[in-house]
Amino acid sequence: MPKPDLLECFASPNTTRPFVIEHISEEFTSVCPVTGHPDFGSVVLTYIPGKVCVELKSLKLYYQSFRNEGIFYEAVTNRIADDLAKAVKPKWMRLETQWKGRGGIRSTIAIEVGKKAK
Amino acid sequence: MPKPDLLECFASPNTTRPFVIEHISEEFTSVCPVTGHPDFGSVVLTYIPGKVCVELKSLKLYYQSFRNEGIFYEAVTNRIADDLAKAVKPKWMRLETQWKGRGGIRSTIAIEVGKKAK
Amino acid sequence: MPKPDLLECFASPNTTRPFVIEHISEEFTSVCPVTGHPDFGSVVLTYIPGKVCVELKSLKLYYQSFRNEGIFYEAVTNRIADDLAKAVKPKWMRLETQWKGRGGIRSTIAIEVGKKAK
Amino acid sequence: MPKPDLLECFASPNTTRPFVIEHISEEFTSVCPVTGHPDFGSVVLTYIPGKVCVELKSLKLYYQSFRNEGIFYEAVTNRIADDLAKAVKPKWMRLETQWKGRGGIRSTIAIEVGKKAK
Amino acid sequence: MPKPDLLECFASPNTTRPFVIEHISEEFTSVCPVTGHPDFGSVVLTYIPGKVCVELKSLKLYYQSFRNEGIFYEAVTNRIADDLAKAVKPKWMRLETQWKGRGGIRSTIAIEVGKKAK
Amino acid sequence: MPKPDLLECFASPNTTRPFVIEHISEEFTSVCPVTGHPDFGSVVLTYIPGKVCVELKSLKLYYQSFRNEGIFYEAVTNRIADDLAKAVKPKWMRLETQWKGRGGIRSTIAIEVGKKAK
Amino acid sequence: MPKPDLLECFASPNTTRPFVIEHISEEFTSVCPVTGHPDFGSVVLTYIPGKVCVELKSLKLYYQSFRNEGIFYEAVTNRIADDLAKAVKPKWMRLETQWKGRGGIRSTIAIEVGKKAK
Amino acid sequence: MPKPDLLECFASPNTTRPFVIEHISEEFTSVCPVTGHPDFGSVVLTYIPGKVCVELKSLKLYYQSFRNEGIFYEAVTNRIADDLAKAVKPKWMRLETQWKGRGGIRSTIAIEVGKKAK
Amino acid sequence: MPKPDLLECFASPNTTRPFVIEHISEEFTSVCPVTGHPDFGSVVLTYIPGKVCVELKSLKLYYQSFRNEGIFYEAVTNRIADDLAKAVKPKWMRLETQWKGRGGIRSTIAIEVGKKAK
Amino acid sequence: MPKPDLLECFASPNTTRPFVIEHISEEFTSVCPVTGHPDFGSVVLTYIPGKVCVELKSLKLYYQSFRNEGIFYEAVTNRIADDLAKAVKPKWMRLETQWKGRGGIRSTIAIEVGKKAK
Repeated sequence: MPKPDLLECFASPNTTRPFVIEHISEEFTSVCPVTGHPDFGSVVLTYIPGKVCVELKSLKLYYQSFRNEGIFYEAVTNRIADDLAKAVKPKWMRLETQWKGRGGIRSTIAIEVGKKAK
Repeated sequence: MPKPDLLECFASPNTTRPFVIEHISEEFTSVCPVTGHPDFGSVVLTYIPGKVCVELKSLKLYYQSFRNEGIFYEAVTNRIADDLAKAVKPKWMRLETQWKGRGGIRSTIAIEVGKKAK
Repeated sequence: MPKPDLLECFASPNTTRPFVIEHISEEFTSVCPVTGHPDFGSVVLTYIPGKVCVELKSLKLYYQSFRNEGIFYEAVTNRIADDLAKAVKPKWMRLETQWKGRGGIRSTIAIEVGKKAK
Repeated sequence: MPKPDLLECFASPNTTRPFVIEHISEEFTSVCPVTGHPDFGSVVLTYIPGKVCVELKSLKLYYQSFRNEGIFYEAVTNRIADDLAKAVKPKWMRLETQWKGRGGIRSTIAIEVGKKAK
Repeated sequence: MPKPDLLECFASPNTTRPFVIEHISEEFTSVCPVTGHPDFGSVVLTYIPGKVCVELKSLKLYYQSFRNEGIFYEAVTNRIADDLAKAVKPKWMRLETQWKGRGGIRSTIAIEVGKKAK
Repeated sequence: MPKPDLLECFASPNTTRPFVIEHISEEFTSVCPVTGHPDFGSVVLTYIPGKVCVELKSLKLYYQSFRNEGIFYEAVTNRIADDLAKAVKPKWMRLETQWKGRGGIRSTIAIEVGKKAK
Repeated sequence: MPKPDLLECFASPNTTRPFVIEHISEEFTSVCPVTGHPDFGSVVLTYIPGKVCVELKSLKLYYQSFRNEGIFYEAVTNRIADDLAKAVKPKWMRLETQWKGRGGIRSTIAIEVGKKAK
Repeated sequence: MPKPDLLECFASPNTTRPFVIEHISEEFTSVCPVTGHPDFGSVVLTYIPGKVCVELKSLKLYYQSFRNEGIFYEAVTNRIADDLAKAVKPKWMRLETQWKGRGGIRSTIAIEVGKKAK
Repeated sequence: MPKPDLLECFASPNTTRPFVIEHISEEFTSVCPVTGHPDFGSVVLTYIPGKVCVELKSLKLYYQSFRNEGIFYEAVTNRIADDLAKAVKPKWMRLETQWKGRGGIRSTIAIEVGKKAK
Repeated sequence: MPKPDLLECFASPNTTRPFVIEHISEEFTSVCPVTGHPDFGSVVLTYIPGKVCVELKSLKLYYQSFRNEGIFYEAVTNRIADDLAKAVKPKWMRLETQWKGRGGIRSTIAIEVGKKAK
């Protein structure tokens, strides 16, 4: 069961100058709610921190909490984006999931939260 | 024979915040209408869903319905784009076909439907 | 339906000095006899010709005759090896099929006919 | 819990001429018995069938039965080799597991069962 | 001798919605007009069709007509762009030639014809 | 201990026409302040020089001064950006650190100093 | 000693329609003025010709004239850009040097001459 | 027309200690005797010299003499092997041709002349 | 200072059937005893266990104990091979170190302990 | 001018157990004695040391002494093999040079000195 309470944050070392953080986890797995077969993929989190940064080990544990969850690609991507946006309150965030092939089709889902200042 | 009726949809998990879905099928095959030889290629579907998302297995079956269809590269690309636009009604869509070499020439055809908001 | 009669041969340009010929076809497709879904793969034919060599275009047409055949990986590999051994009568032959993933598992089947002189 | 009873076999299409079958699963996951963190890896099964071949879908389900099992790299590799050798009775078999990095170290374990005739 | 008369066209399957076609030929060869040595390279044609599309086999034959032509990189690129623009009358076109190394230097020449609507 | 005093500069060969310099160091290592385990990564420095350029050997020695420093990814990136901005006073600078995986997660941190004129 | 007099030009085959030429030389070498050790790298010249194009063999000989020259990365890049701009008078030019690692640091220097019309 | 008379040799710098020379030409082209279409491929010559080595430029010119020759894959490979064996009289030689795809099939032909001492 | 006492072992899950274990650490660093500059490389340990296997975390900590040790490539490789052979008593072992470039030269050192049964 | 006197050695850390050392230099350059154009390549030295190992920096300086030497591929390879065999007196040695393309042909020359014990 997804556990957003696992997410922990620490104060950003620089809150005046925006900078970009990217964490790529290539070991994400959840379960297809229809067939019960496991899905495997990567989660790419990219964000400009507000006051806090997400702590890496807590992020890993949060991702692991999806291990036995039956949930669609599109839904899990929205769920992670919502949970992280709520916990980290970034100035800008992008959440992308990349899924290994099922039936010969590979999929990618991407969500942006907020506007990236240019 | 292409069967757009095979396409099924499900309600998008998020209809207020736009997000991007991409499905890459590397196992597309149809037949050259002139020589009768099979063509092989990939189909890359990228779209921002409106109210619904296309269901993956139905997408696979729809692609398979081209297996013994005699149809040109340019025509099959337009046909798939039209069928998907009608069934999924996306806010924006891009359909790209990538074909393995024939006579030493590799080809790619790409169609955009709607404008991608920046 | 597999049509070994399509295979044509021509006299080898050198029947005294053994040499090795390899033809790699990356566009093989047949059908799973259980699910009816198409299988996609490559066929690698390697052989030392006896009196004749297999003609390339006829090899392509022979491979295409499996397009709508329902047949298992292991069986199609043995079938092609048998048909080619009978038609080409090589001094030595190796037939390998490499299959794209099904359910997250990629497969390779390889058969050797005769002994390769060292 | 590993369930070797899930493994199913079918009669080999050729029991007189030895041939080699390889199944590569890149979606294996089990759990570290010490830390409780998930391990991710690939399983490469290569074998010369005796009277039977292992059925692909049953192989996938058998691998999935390790999903929540706490077991070391070396032990899981020996366990799978034993289960498969017992169920498939191959003339020769090689079982290799390839594990993603832990603490900056990637690992591979390989077991051979029987002698490969040259 | 370059033979633009070899180029044949067929009616575009969609003349209202712009789409992009790319043909990559990796088997182009002409001759250096100074040294007489052959040049080898790729030709990448990308275009948005107007009323017609270029037929693939005729494009291949047109490219082959440069086989024994003595002509500089810069000139052959302009020549092909001109011939194709005249025959296909695309809404937009880009012609790029990529040449294998001569004297340790690899070269690329690119020409755009018309403006690509954004 | 980070030693910004190690950084040395030399007069830029061209102070009127802006140009871009990039130094990629793939051998950066510091220490995790929590676990005490070493972290490994790359540092990519990209900048448009003002009056001076940073001298390469001094840059290497400055990076080496982090070898036994316990410091977080986000903090070390900000620290290097600050030290270099102060020493080199570039017209524009980008500092990116790319970290090898920890617990299955790879990370990248990027900071821009100043605006890049277009 | 750098010899810009070696550079020769020929009339561009098309002076009305702008097109882009790129020459990549992966065999550039000069000498470090401090240590006397050789430096190795690539030079990428990209330009839109004015009235003339640079002749390839003369470009190679000009690059070779740096072989025993003691000169810094930043200086050699500016020097080549200046020499070529003077000899070829391009509408636009970009000169990039890419240097193999020294002390674990790889470097790239890039200079643009003129504005590229969009 | 193949011109073996173009091949020139020079005395090997070491005729007592065997050593191996390999020349890889990726720019070979001949013509299909049936369709008249050009074939493209690579020629890999590997040999242990006897008293002489083949001169590189003469080898290039000899390969170029096949440019407009209509000849099958298997025949051209035997022809080159014979011509080189006669001109260079190597202690051992291997001649391999690697051909780009025709009708979705890539081919490789290899001939060994003499025995390689172990 | 190298600390072989850090190495811990556990009972092999199979002491009758030989199997091969490989651990690849891409994050090894020590110090050049002459220049004091850090060296970076990978350590590949491959072995057939006797009664015990080396525990992964202890292996990591043992490798980390070289972090500030001044030691030559050849010596560190022999040292690790000796320490591991003494602690693990494998039936066969191979220890390879792969070092990133110094002065444009990359190095690899490999040691085998015992004979690998065929 | 090649200067074998530059080669320095140090006592091998292990003279009883044979081990293999490989040094790969990707920055070798000499001059073609016919055309005067520079040649570029890599030198791969692999050896089992006798009593001494070659010192890395001295190896680099020895290689640099060929920079302005006019010498053929085959000759330079034999020369380096002879010089190193004399200076290092290895139990076994292999010297391979890999040359970048000239006239579309890439070359490799390899020499073995002594027999490698199996």
